[in-house]
Amino acid sequence: MESVTIKDIARICGVGVSTVSRAMNDHPDINQETKDKIMRVIREHNYIPNNSAQNLKRADAKTIAVLVKGISNPLFARMIKVLEREIQKQHYSLVLQHVDDRQNEVDVAIQLEKEKRLRGIVFLGGYFSHSEEKLKQISVPFVLSTIGLLEDANKEKYASVSVDDVRESSRMVEYLIAKGHRDIAILAAREDDTSIGLLRLQGYYQTLKKHGIKPNPALVVYMKEELGPYTMENGYAMAKELLASGEKFTALFAISDRMAVGACKAILEAGKTVPQDYSVAGFDGLDLAQFYNPTITTIRQPMEEMAEAAIRTLFDMIEQEGKKKHVVFAGELIEGQSVRQI
Amino acid sequence: MESVTIKDIARICGVGVSTVSRAMNDHPDINQETKDKIMRVIREHNYIPNNSAQNLKRADAKTIAVLVKGISNPLFARMIKVLEREIQKQHYSLVLQHVDDRQNEVDVAIQLEKEKRLRGIVFLGGYFSHSEEKLKQISVPFVLSTIGLLEDANKEKYASVSVDDVRESSRMVEYLIAKGHRDIAILAAREDDTSIGLLRLQGYYQTLKKHGIKPNPALVVYMKEELGPYTMENGYAMAKELLASGEKFTALFAISDRMAVGACKAILEAGKTVPQDYSVAGFDGLDLAQFYNPTITTIRQPMEEMAEAAIRTLFDMIEQEGKKKHVVFAGELIEGQSVRQI
Repeated sequence: MESVTIKDIARICGVGVSTVSRAMNDHPDINQETKDKIMRVIREHNYIPNNSAQNLKRADAKTIAVLVKGISNPLFARMIKVLEREIQKQHYSLVLQHVDDRQNEVDVAIQLEKEKRLRGIVFLGGYFSHSEEKLKQISVPFVLSTIGLLEDANKEKYASVSVDDVRESSRMVEYLIAKGHRDIAILAAREDDTSIGLLRLQGYYQTLKKHGIKPNPALVVYMKEELGPYTMENGYAMAKELLASGEKFTALFAISDRMAVGACKAILEAGKTVPQDYSVAGFDGLDLAQFYNPTITTIRQPMEEMAEAAIRTLFDMIEQEGKKKHVVFAGELIEGQSVRQI
Repeated sequence: MESVTIKDIARICGVGVSTVSRAMNDHPDINQETKDKIMRVIREHNYIPNNSAQNLKRADAKTIAVLVKGISNPLFARMIKVLEREIQKQHYSLVLQHVDDRQNEVDVAIQLEKEKRLRGIVFLGGYFSHSEEKLKQISVPFVLSTIGLLEDANKEKYASVSVDDVRESSRMVEYLIAKGHRDIAILAAREDDTSIGLLRLQGYYQTLKKHGIKPNPALVVYMKEELGPYTMENGYAMAKELLASGEKFTALFAISDRMAVGACKAILEAGKTVPQDYSVAGFDGLDLAQFYNPTITTIRQPMEEMAEAAIRTLFDMIEQEGKKKHVVFAGELIEGQSVRQI
C-alpha cells in the first residue's frame, strides 16, 4: 500500500501544504473550520507525518520525563492524566517511568537523561533525601511533587509542588481532638521513613503536644516492610496488631485512605464497629473514602491542581529560566461518617 | 567532580573490568558474592555506565512499549510491575505510554514505532477492533492483553493473553442462579462497547437463556458515558437509576469490582442493605473486593500470571519468531459476604 503524504492531504483538502502543517502543529494562525477538516482527513487516511528526520529530532529534543514511585497509588493516576494533557499541549513528548521501591530515583533520572536528551523531569512520590552532590548530576530542570521535603533541605536546589504534610496532618488531629478524642492512635509510615510519612507523624506529635496530650508510643504503629506501602493490606495488618495489644484508644488516624479502609476491616473482624467503638480517619481524599461504608473522614489533596502547578513550574524553568518555586497547596478536611463525637 | 569509571570500580573491588561488566549485565558466569560486592560498590560510588555510544544504541534498539488504556485501573498497575521486571531481566528497556480514552491505540503505536525503533509492543486494555489494514502498519510483534477479542477477529493477526470473558461472566451468573436468584440485574459497559464489556454481557445472556430465564431489558444498565468507565462513581449512578426504576430484582452483577462498590453505596442510600435486600457481585478480584464491608463476591483474574505470559509470548515472537499464541487463563470465583441464598 502506497502511504499517504502531506501533499495528498493538502490536495484532498484543497489547501496548501503549509496550511496542513499549520493544522498539525496547532498553529494559532489558521481558521478553526479548515483545521477541523484537515484533521478529519488526516485521521480518515491514517496519515502519519513521515518527515522522520525532523520528527525524530523533535521527539528527542523535547521530552519531559515523569518518574513515578508507587504506580499503584490512585492519586498518581489522576496526576499523570493532567501531566500528559499539559505536556502534549506544549508539544513536548512524555516518557513515563516507574521507579521501583528499591531503586534510587536520581540514578534512574540520570540514566534517562543520557538516553533521551530530556528537557525536564517531574518526580512523583518517593523518599527524596538525596545529597546535593548527587542532585548536581541532574543537569535539566526538575520539579518534585507530592514528596515530603524535610525542613533542612536546601530549597534552592529544588522546585516543588505539594501540600504541607505537617500542617494537613495537624488539621486532622485537631479535628479528632475537637470531637473529644484524646487517645488517638496513628497508622504511620515505616519507622525509617524520611518523607511524607515522617512529616505526617510530626504533625500528629505537634498537635498532641499543643493540647497537652502525652503521646503514647504504644499507639504509634509503623507500616510493615513486607507489605505494600500505604495499602489496605498494610493498614489491616497494622490495626490488627494495635487491637491485639489491648492498648486503649478511641480514634485511629491512618495516613492514607487505603490504610484507613484496611483498619476498618480489622476493627470489624474484632467484632467492633466504626464509628461506634472506634473513630477512623484517613488521608488523601480518594474516591474510596467517599464510597466506603461508612464514608471515611479524610484530608483531600488537590491532585489535579497540583499536577497543573508542577508542569507549569517546570515549563517556566525550561523556557524562561524561571526560579525554583515552592508551591504549597492547602488540603481540605472532608467529613465522613467514620468519626463520632465522644 | 571527576566521575567514577568502570576501571575505578574494578580497582576498588580488586577484580578485572570484565568481571564488573559481567556483574552489571547479570551474566550467569559470576560468583554471587563477588557480584553483590561489585553492585554495592557501584551504588556507593554512584557509578553510571558511561559508555554512551553503546548505551544509546542498546536503549534505542531494544525497547518494548507497553500501551495502557485506563491507567487508573488497579489491575494494570499490578501487571505493569511484572512487565517491568521481566523486560529488565531480558535487558530491554521499557516505554510506558498511556493511551487516552479518545485516542486510537494503533495510531499511538505506529507513531511510537517511528520515534523509538521498538522491538515489540504489549497493549493493555481498551477497545481493540481495528481493521487488518490498520494493523498491518504495525511492523513489530505485539501482544494484546486483557482486551476482549470478538469471535470474528482474525486470530492469526494477533497474539493475546486474557481470560475468557464470556465464560467467566457465565461462571458468576451460574453461581447467582444456584443461589436461587432469577431476577438478576447487570451493570454492563457502554451500549456501544465492543470489548470485554460486550463479552461479559454475552455471558450473562447465554447463562440466563440456558436456565430458561427470559432476560428483562429493564435490568440491563449501561455505563454512563460522561463518567469514568468501570469506576465506583459510574456504578453508583447506574445502580441509583436501576433502583429508581422500581424494577424488581434480587441480585446485581457489576462487571467490575469498583462498580459493585458504587452499587452498594446506592443501595445503602436507598435504605436497603447488602446482601439482605440485594445480593451484589463484582468482577476482577481487586483488593477492594476483599476489604469492602461486606466483602464482595467476585471473579479473580490472575493478573500477575497473565502479565508473565504476555511478555513471554512477546519475547518468543521477537527472538525466536514464535507463533501468534492465544493464551487463555481461567478466572476464579471468590465467595464474599455480598451474595445470599434466597
